Amino acid sequence: MAKELKELTNREENYSQWYNDLVVKAGLAENSSVRGCMVIKPYGYAIWEKMHEILDRMFKETGHVNAYFPLFIPKSFFSREADHVEGFAKECAVVTHYRLKNNPDGSGVVVDPDAKLEEELIVRPTSETIIWSTYKNWIQSYRDLPILCNQWANVVRWEMRTRLFLRTAEFLWQEGHTAHETREEAIAEAQRMIGVYKQFVEEYMAVPVIVGHKSANERFAGAEDTLTIEAMMQDGKALQSGTSHFLGQNFARAFDVQFANREGKLEYVWATSWGVSTRLMGALIMAHSDNNGLVLPPKLAPIQVVMIPIYKGEEELGKAVDVLRKIADELKAKGISVKIDDRDNVRSGFKFAEYELKGVPVRLALGPRDLANGTIELVRRDTLEKETVPQEGLADRIAGLLDEIQQHIFDKALRFRNDRITRVDTWDEFVRVLDEKGGFISAHWDGTTETEVAIKEATKATIRCIPFDAVDEEGVDVFSGKPSHRRVLFARSY
Amino acid sequence: MAKELKELTNREENYSQWYNDLVVKAGLAENSSVRGCMVIKPYGYAIWEKMHEILDRMFKETGHVNAYFPLFIPKSFFSREADHVEGFAKECAVVTHYRLKNNPDGSGVVVDPDAKLEEELIVRPTSETIIWSTYKNWIQSYRDLPILCNQWANVVRWEMRTRLFLRTAEFLWQEGHTAHETREEAIAEAQRMIGVYKQFVEEYMAVPVIVGHKSANERFAGAEDTLTIEAMMQDGKALQSGTSHFLGQNFARAFDVQFANREGKLEYVWATSWGVSTRLMGALIMAHSDNNGLVLPPKLAPIQVVMIPIYKGEEELGKAVDVLRKIADELKAKGISVKIDDRDNVRSGFKFAEYELKGVPVRLALGPRDLANGTIELVRRDTLEKETVPQEGLADRIAGLLDEIQQHIFDKALRFRNDRITRVDTWDEFVRVLDEKGGFISAHWDGTTETEVAIKEATKATIRCIPFDAVDEEGVDVFSGKPSHRRVLFARSY
Repeated sequence: MAKELKELTNREENYSQWYNDLVVKAGLAENSSVRGCMVIKPYGYAIWEKMHEILDRMFKETGHVNAYFPLFIPKSFFSREADHVEGFAKECAVVTHYRLKNNPDGSGVVVDPDAKLEEELIVRPTSETIIWSTYKNWIQSYRDLPILCNQWANVVRWEMRTRLFLRTAEFLWQEGHTAHETREEAIAEAQRMIGVYKQFVEEYMAVPVIVGHKSANERFAGAEDTLTIEAMMQDGKALQSGTSHFLGQNFARAFDVQFANREGKLEYVWATSWGVSTRLMGALIMAHSDNNGLVLPPKLAPIQVVMIPIYKGEEELGKAVDVLRKIADELKAKGISVKIDDRDNVRSGFKFAEYELKGVPVRLALGPRDLANGTIELVRRDTLEKETVPQEGLADRIAGLLDEIQQHIFDKALRFRNDRITRVDTWDEFVRVLDEKGGFISAHWDGTTETEVAIKEATKATIRCIPFDAVDEEGVDVFSGKPSHRRVLFARSY
Repeated sequence: MAKELKELTNREENYSQWYNDLVVKAGLAENSSVRGCMVIKPYGYAIWEKMHEILDRMFKETGHVNAYFPLFIPKSFFSREADHVEGFAKECAVVTHYRLKNNPDGSGVVVDPDAKLEEELIVRPTSETIIWSTYKNWIQSYRDLPILCNQWANVVRWEMRTRLFLRTAEFLWQEGHTAHETREEAIAEAQRMIGVYKQFVEEYMAVPVIVGHKSANERFAGAEDTLTIEAMMQDGKALQSGTSHFLGQNFARAFDVQFANREGKLEYVWATSWGVSTRLMGALIMAHSDNNGLVLPPKLAPIQVVMIPIYKGEEELGKAVDVLRKIADELKAKGISVKIDDRDNVRSGFKFAEYELKGVPVRLALGPRDLANGTIELVRRDTLEKETVPQEGLADRIAGLLDEIQQHIFDKALRFRNDRITRVDTWDEFVRVLDEKGGFISAHWDGTTETEVAIKEATKATIRCIPFDAVDEEGVDVFSGKPSHRRVLFARSY
């Protein structure tokens, strides 16, 4: 067994360490010399590129265009929207100077005290303020609306405790910022985009999510309503995977963005914003992987099929590789990404373990007996099932198998998630389920921030969402005993 | 004629103002509230996206992968490579604090003096240092080489005088950073990538470039050799459009990156880096556009064909749009991007001017007479030639025309550029040609930095490159009178 694999911490022993090991050893990302900032390595970036490409296509299909706004935001912009400044202008990277100079003592460079900025600049933690200060110049009349912009960018939030992909000081994301004529249109846009996120996460990442509203306490700073998709990880914790905000007229008021409406009257513009980030990588990794390494859904796997020749000597290698190349061409013709690993400095057992670690969905191995028999060994990563199949018709078989794996991974995650939604009606049960089983707890809530905060302080569980499909049901709050009209989902979360 | 067009400054009157007007009025970019930082607007970003997409494909076809490295670089990293610190660690954005707090007087937020970083962070002006500090952990043996990474990122250089796309404090770019076993392999890589840039700029941007070496004085800070592609703008100034650097072992030494070579001996790794940026947008705009607006090469135009119905009343509009939709479908089937502009609140003359301003390569207009005759009016943007052609066979005609326009734009720029390479053998002539004609001056140079600097101080002209195809030719330096072995290209530049 490969060295790397032996060193992968057991998931059941230490989930958090297992996750970190996996990210590093599978070559997805690593910590950098800069506190809290990660390096996204080529294999990890290749997955993020696929996510980017698919999401970008989905945004364009729903009428959005891309643009790019400045990295820096003048400090004063944050003070314009009262809630926003509380939420975002605290732990952030502050640029105060614009020049270095040689240290008079000859030891490197120092900050030039003469090059102090008049107003400090904040490295964007999110771009509502700089974008709405720009939209002010773009919008005069209802004819200039809607504006449906998205931006792919890096953002910085000075997190104290960081974890690769899940919470890093710098991360990559997309942020949509739209401007509308009416409240209804903006609400519909926020709904549409949380729908796009749900579709992407379920269809491509194979991670089932629950869609709902955030409680007032968990809302985006400056939003009137925050919609969220919540996923369940294998340790029973929830992961907020994407959010879409109805911002009302808050940012339009803050930056004085008015338009002449169809009646010729001035009105503040209605807004939404929505985003997903490299945090999705964390969700992808944690939702499916096991003690052998990553399990990647075929639709996002940078390599869908890896082929390994089993041979003794040059001649056998040559024959095996010839056959593998022919099969590779057939697979590529079907749009399947393939890698032939003919390295001669590592054993095939090492290669098997390596591609298991990297989560390649299908592994083919071709040995002398297969050469003689016209067969090939096929192993699927999700179940580790091994079978020997004919080379004849292999491309069709694999195309079908990739679809099957994609579905199987989703179904497994869905079963896991559904098994971890527990209806709870008493406080004792709430605490017990949370500690013993984890997952989502469907419980009555009295609707107050006071109760929500008290529950969080007592258990670290928060309201993940008020599901869209929550049904009206009279009950009493598990904590306060006050009346409640529907169940919400609680969980501990990332 | 449209309001915007009237306001476009005449190119011959004030080239610089014409350029700025064009960028803003065509909706490509605008200045932001943050000094020196631009907003790239959707139409400009759509062009950059195409550049990104094509270059990214070319990088991958030459074996490169993408990754992502931190935005911030510890200040001390810059001091590691002596030349690099001189070149890059001066005018830059310095992060000194990581927290804001509410101003005790209640007026917004202030920097929290208690949240001072131990070591200041520099917003990357280029990433050699942070990347080579990372590569140290990736490289042990020759088997780990080559590393062929590229990154798409934003960078910041605190420029005092900024111009949209050409010189901005923040800009978008890609930076390739490769690590090699041997000097020869690294040199070959630097050459390969300047070749990729030349191919991209000529084939897609339709801008001819001259490839060559930079003089020692104009080299990248930390490079042993800098290769460049130099383009000629319509005002006779050169524009450096891309560079590829052979970095020798300088960064490997600075960050102690050694590998066990095939003989088992430790050796420093050989490096290259190469980049192009949103500056290419400036080159694209300035190389082809005219007093009517942008002229975009079809291969990079976000909209290749715009269609405008000419009508009186709803019924005529409906009929015209029906025909245009049918034609649009045929064009789309050939991979041609099309927009039908059926806005009813502006006149068709306004639309014509608007798409000229935006540089859409082909404009089709369909009026009642065309409807009756089965014809359509076709105008190409590069020559403004207008003709009435049959609707029959239109898709094929336009596919061919787009190729023709692409070639015509390139040929025109090539003729313009070639007319502006002047062989000069005396100093008087050098100064006169530079002032009266501009363009590239092909002159003898004695090879010293002293002379180069003196010429720059006297004329603002610099050595743009020592062309790859410079032939051995004995002569005397136009300025110093000292012996010279080949001609180099001088020009004033952006």
